[in-house]
Amino acid sequence: MTAFARSLAVLWCSASLSAVAADATPRTMGELLERSAAGDWRALDPENTLYLQLDTGRVIIELAPAFAPRHVANIKALARGHYYDDLAIERVQDNFVAQWGDSTGKKPVGAAARTLPAEFTRAVSPSLPFTVLPDRDGYAASVGFTDGMPAARDASGTRTWLAHCYGTLGVGRDLDVDSGGGTELYVVIGHAPRQLDRNITVAGRVVRGMELLASLPRGTGALGFYEKPHEGVRIRSVRVAADLPPAERVPVEVLRTDTPLFTQLVELRRNRADDWYKQPAGYIDLCSVPLPARISATSPAG
Amino acid sequence: MTAFARSLAVLWCSASLSAVAADATPRTMGELLERSAAGDWRALDPENTLYLQLDTGRVIIELAPAFAPRHVANIKALARGHYYDDLAIERVQDNFVAQWGDSTGKKPVGAAARTLPAEFTRAVSPSLPFTVLPDRDGYAASVGFTDGMPAARDASGTRTWLAHCYGTLGVGRDLDVDSGGGTELYVVIGHAPRQLDRNITVAGRVVRGMELLASLPRGTGALGFYEKPHEGVRIRSVRVAADLPPAERVPVEVLRTDTPLFTQLVELRRNRADDWYKQPAGYIDLCSVPLPARISATSPAG
Repeated sequence: MTAFARSLAVLWCSASLSAVAADATPRTMGELLERSAAGDWRALDPENTLYLQLDTGRVIIELAPAFAPRHVANIKALARGHYYDDLAIERVQDNFVAQWGDSTGKKPVGAAARTLPAEFTRAVSPSLPFTVLPDRDGYAASVGFTDGMPAARDASGTRTWLAHCYGTLGVGRDLDVDSGGGTELYVVIGHAPRQLDRNITVAGRVVRGMELLASLPRGTGALGFYEKPHEGVRIRSVRVAADLPPAERVPVEVLRTDTPLFTQLVELRRNRADDWYKQPAGYIDLCSVPLPARISATSPAG
Repeated sequence: MTAFARSLAVLWCSASLSAVAADATPRTMGELLERSAAGDWRALDPENTLYLQLDTGRVIIELAPAFAPRHVANIKALARGHYYDDLAIERVQDNFVAQWGDSTGKKPVGAAARTLPAEFTRAVSPSLPFTVLPDRDGYAASVGFTDGMPAARDASGTRTWLAHCYGTLGVGRDLDVDSGGGTELYVVIGHAPRQLDRNITVAGRVVRGMELLASLPRGTGALGFYEKPHEGVRIRSVRVAADLPPAERVPVEVLRTDTPLFTQLVELRRNRADDWYKQPAGYIDLCSVPLPARISATSPAG
């Protein structure tokens, strides 16, 4: 096995970290995370965590109520009404998105709404932290991270929105901006389609289980839709984590993005310092910044 | 089915284009490509085309001898010696790469070399066309396209290299810069890992069949290596297209990147003009520019 890009592995579990001397300067993300304290991590809020259960496993999604409050509430209402259960992933377009829901628009939405006013951007607020990325971005005046989500701001500093990176969860819509509501959801499975930013409502991001979506067979129809109903990938259920007994939840923690450790991580990735890299980039684009997640080591279920 | 991102579909076959009035200004890539002339396309050179044959289908790779002459020659020598046949894709790391070859380093390479001096960058030359992307890039002084490949140049305009985008083919190496040679190859299956640029030899790009690599199960070992030998995805063969009888070749054409039509395509993607987009980006990053391929309509095999 070559050492090709050994340092690039995104760590999903602190147990996989190798030992590092406490007095050495961390040269890789793994070494840095080994130094992290409990306070560098944040447990997901079960009330804003979705479990998308497939036959192959569980995809864990963190919702972003600060950016799409009405859509997040509606997606939770749909989940709580078991709307998504036994629907299917209907579309997997290579290097773009996996999309699930009811494209026929026929399944009753119960107490939830079918469509909602767009939540493409929101006002900047002192309540929203924003760890600015030092590097320039082509799609926005400034970019960075808000509560663990890749985010952007406009030149006037008054509007903010979540960016489309690998793993971003969005709300499918038709031509009308207000035609989405959560009955169709998509996750980015390829190179960041940043041109979607500010054109569609972003509702969160996948923090675990991306490989279950990204490895699905691509649809052969237009836009990657599966052409035959039996090709659709069955959704067993979508649940709000808070609605499951604690023993059935996964105690996921994500790295906080408002800490000195995270700033150090960004710098380590802007300029790789390990033995493999000979020409550090001196730059990192928003969607290349890793957002580590792990299973809580202190939880009995971990 | 929502119209979500209907215009984003990368077209692989001109047959899928819908009709458009000849006098209307094209608003989408599909409409633009329908206007393309035969001269806007370029047939792949069979001598620099590789067929990676899996049980699930054929991945078609265009090699880049202008950027990595010695590595391309060596990869062809390995293919012609049937080196890759019955080896396996040993590593599929989510949002990063699929990698194949012989990680044990034991299989004889025959007349080929096992390692070669690095070909990370090369001198700019008048013989190399370079269609400059109008937008700035964070990883290089300027970026654009050389003979259909995403490429970059340094600030002095004297060195150039191929960029790591979705579909890029690279030559795995160990810590030493001269430790690669083609016995292990990888293809990018996720968000563009541009930090690899100038750190490793790029030998070409996949022009068809990416979905066969990108949908493979992810390896559960370190760096996405499959943990058990039986998990490896068998490679039936790797052949240089020129070595196959013409009837067994796929007559792929790729869109030329040195034409007014391509410049128009880039502009159409920088500022989407169809009904779905409400907020055109006014920007496009190098790896978001589509590089259409199609099966030649005039070939009997098409």
